[in-house]
Amino acid sequence: MSVTAPLGFRAAGIAAGIKAGGARDLALIVNDGPCRAAAGVFTVNRVKAAPVLWSQQVLSGGRVHAVVLNSGGANACTGPLGFQDTHATAEKVAQALDDSAGEVAVCSTGLIGERLPMDPLLAGVDLAVSQLARDGGLAAADAIRTTDTVSKISFRRGEGGYMVGGMAKGAGMLAPGLATMLSVITTDADLPAELLDEVLRRVTRVTFDRLDADGCMSTNDTVLLLASGASGTVPDLAEFEQVLLAVCADLVRQLLLDAEGASKAIAVEVVGAASEDDAVTVGRSVARSNLLKCAIHGEDPNWGRVLSAVGTTDAAFEPERLNVAINGIWICRGGAVGDDRSKVDLTPRDVTITVDLSAGPHTATIHTTDLTAAYVHENSAYSS
Amino acid sequence: MSVTAPLGFRAAGIAAGIKAGGARDLALIVNDGPCRAAAGVFTVNRVKAAPVLWSQQVLSGGRVHAVVLNSGGANACTGPLGFQDTHATAEKVAQALDDSAGEVAVCSTGLIGERLPMDPLLAGVDLAVSQLARDGGLAAADAIRTTDTVSKISFRRGEGGYMVGGMAKGAGMLAPGLATMLSVITTDADLPAELLDEVLRRVTRVTFDRLDADGCMSTNDTVLLLASGASGTVPDLAEFEQVLLAVCADLVRQLLLDAEGASKAIAVEVVGAASEDDAVTVGRSVARSNLLKCAIHGEDPNWGRVLSAVGTTDAAFEPERLNVAINGIWICRGGAVGDDRSKVDLTPRDVTITVDLSAGPHTATIHTTDLTAAYVHENSAYSS
Repeated sequence: MSVTAPLGFRAAGIAAGIKAGGARDLALIVNDGPCRAAAGVFTVNRVKAAPVLWSQQVLSGGRVHAVVLNSGGANACTGPLGFQDTHATAEKVAQALDDSAGEVAVCSTGLIGERLPMDPLLAGVDLAVSQLARDGGLAAADAIRTTDTVSKISFRRGEGGYMVGGMAKGAGMLAPGLATMLSVITTDADLPAELLDEVLRRVTRVTFDRLDADGCMSTNDTVLLLASGASGTVPDLAEFEQVLLAVCADLVRQLLLDAEGASKAIAVEVVGAASEDDAVTVGRSVARSNLLKCAIHGEDPNWGRVLSAVGTTDAAFEPERLNVAINGIWICRGGAVGDDRSKVDLTPRDVTITVDLSAGPHTATIHTTDLTAAYVHENSAYSS
Repeated sequence: MSVTAPLGFRAAGIAAGIKAGGARDLALIVNDGPCRAAAGVFTVNRVKAAPVLWSQQVLSGGRVHAVVLNSGGANACTGPLGFQDTHATAEKVAQALDDSAGEVAVCSTGLIGERLPMDPLLAGVDLAVSQLARDGGLAAADAIRTTDTVSKISFRRGEGGYMVGGMAKGAGMLAPGLATMLSVITTDADLPAELLDEVLRRVTRVTFDRLDADGCMSTNDTVLLLASGASGTVPDLAEFEQVLLAVCADLVRQLLLDAEGASKAIAVEVVGAASEDDAVTVGRSVARSNLLKCAIHGEDPNWGRVLSAVGTTDAAFEPERLNVAINGIWICRGGAVGDDRSKVDLTPRDVTITVDLSAGPHTATIHTTDLTAAYVHENSAYSS
């Protein structure tokens, strides 16, 4: 189902020969309308890949007819020639659809710093167009995988009968300012681009932006939201936001569980913060502590490493009023030893670290993973 | 030699029984004068261990008679009772020396969140006092080790015959806002506390503060500088600064080479920056990229991961003017592919990553290590 769960969308996922080994590596999603309203959020990394620079221009118009995505190469740090490659890819899709390239978004993922093999890629576009189908969503989700071990898809039905569907990829380089490398979400609800943009920003801020697997921000992160209007339903905006939130949260959960080399899914839940910004800042700092992530991997409830990460932030708190629970046991109270640490059960895959700043009513949760030898191995050997 | 290389200092390092296993775990350094001028810099972590809070008070007076240091426990996050333990330790040393506790600095290192075993520790102070000796510097350096595999010591002679000597420990949790957990540096030069403070801050800013092994900032980091004046030499301040710089740089190099689980010593050298702050910011961001650190471990010259780390900063640069060299080969030029990456030799232990921001004349170098399965192992198993 994935991106083709809503009416008005066709998709394909094919092997163009960009990746060695013959796996699928090119996805195409086409919005057959009647509407083409779209919104996008992109990496805030100042070193942006060519497809990000291109797609930001496309999305500024608020309309997307098609999205073409490739794995097997990020087309990042490839200079003006890399940008020409992205442009040529969009033109090729536009020609095949008899439309303008100005409504064709492009996404790429894979190694940075290498040009894409344009001959097989452009030939692949023709193949993908020929295979566009209403049931092509799964193949498209498969084609954007890199080190992802599984495809990530989700869909939900909204009130009045419209659908929201989505796919995502991203097993490494998950970090704030977008935590996934690529995600495309579709809906057959009828909403204008301005409202899509508004809702997408609110939803990604509390979903994709709060996943931080390894603190490394990608050059290619992109989340696109496309609306066909094919259901004829004009949803209540608040209700639509909840449905979109459910789809994004589901995709984030799948990304977290498939993060490179991870053996634990850690939720860093900050409560008692003076502001939501403080809660996010503290959550990120804890989620980025390599020492803590190693401790959780070793099933050691090392709350001292939590406090030392909290202490590096400028959030409002008093050290002697900090409380920390791991999996529900308050092992640190008032900045010092609390309940018996032997009561903490760290054997489950899911780990919740609760940090109480005792400074106000605000909360936020950041999702991360443990740090493992498998992560080191995967990221030492990636390009070789 | 170490801290007893300069005249006027005695030291001891003994096994008090704080650590299980009978290894040395208590060090004492006494300044016999004629001067007692001293300066200190401390962790900027807002969660500070009890000995840091105590020693900051002591150093505010500009005089230190003795420093007592223990391994086997950090006395951090131990509440008011932990502070009382630090106070009691200082009092015990003061009694043995027939002096006031107000000139006794205390340092602790080890696990966070556990009270120190005070009975063996206080008995150990008596033993240490009885063993104070002019050749006790090596034993003291040995006694402050935790996961350090070797003692770190250094000394240099200055013009006019004065000496500067030092010891340090710190194999993990090396991060800015002091990169070592503990270091004591001594000199028999004759300098007042205000000048020691001024010089120490300038020197630590470009040495200890630019070592960032794992991005984790300790609750206990302390660097103390003690002057006995016993050589009778009043050094030229600029010359003294160079000697102190040499000792601190040597200690930092030893810390880097002994960082937990590291197989590479990485210098991230930022050039062409619009300001020194920009250079430091970019250097830290690159030095903290887990993905890059894994790549270097795998001897993969993955310059894309360098650029993506640079791109997360707010330093002045244009993406299309960034250049990156690894071990002297400019594999990224103008933000895109440069020289042949196969020319990069990553087999040596020392790796230099040069980032040219093309934005100005300023430079800075941050030192870090690679990320290895051994680091994960050591920090997963530390407390068990």
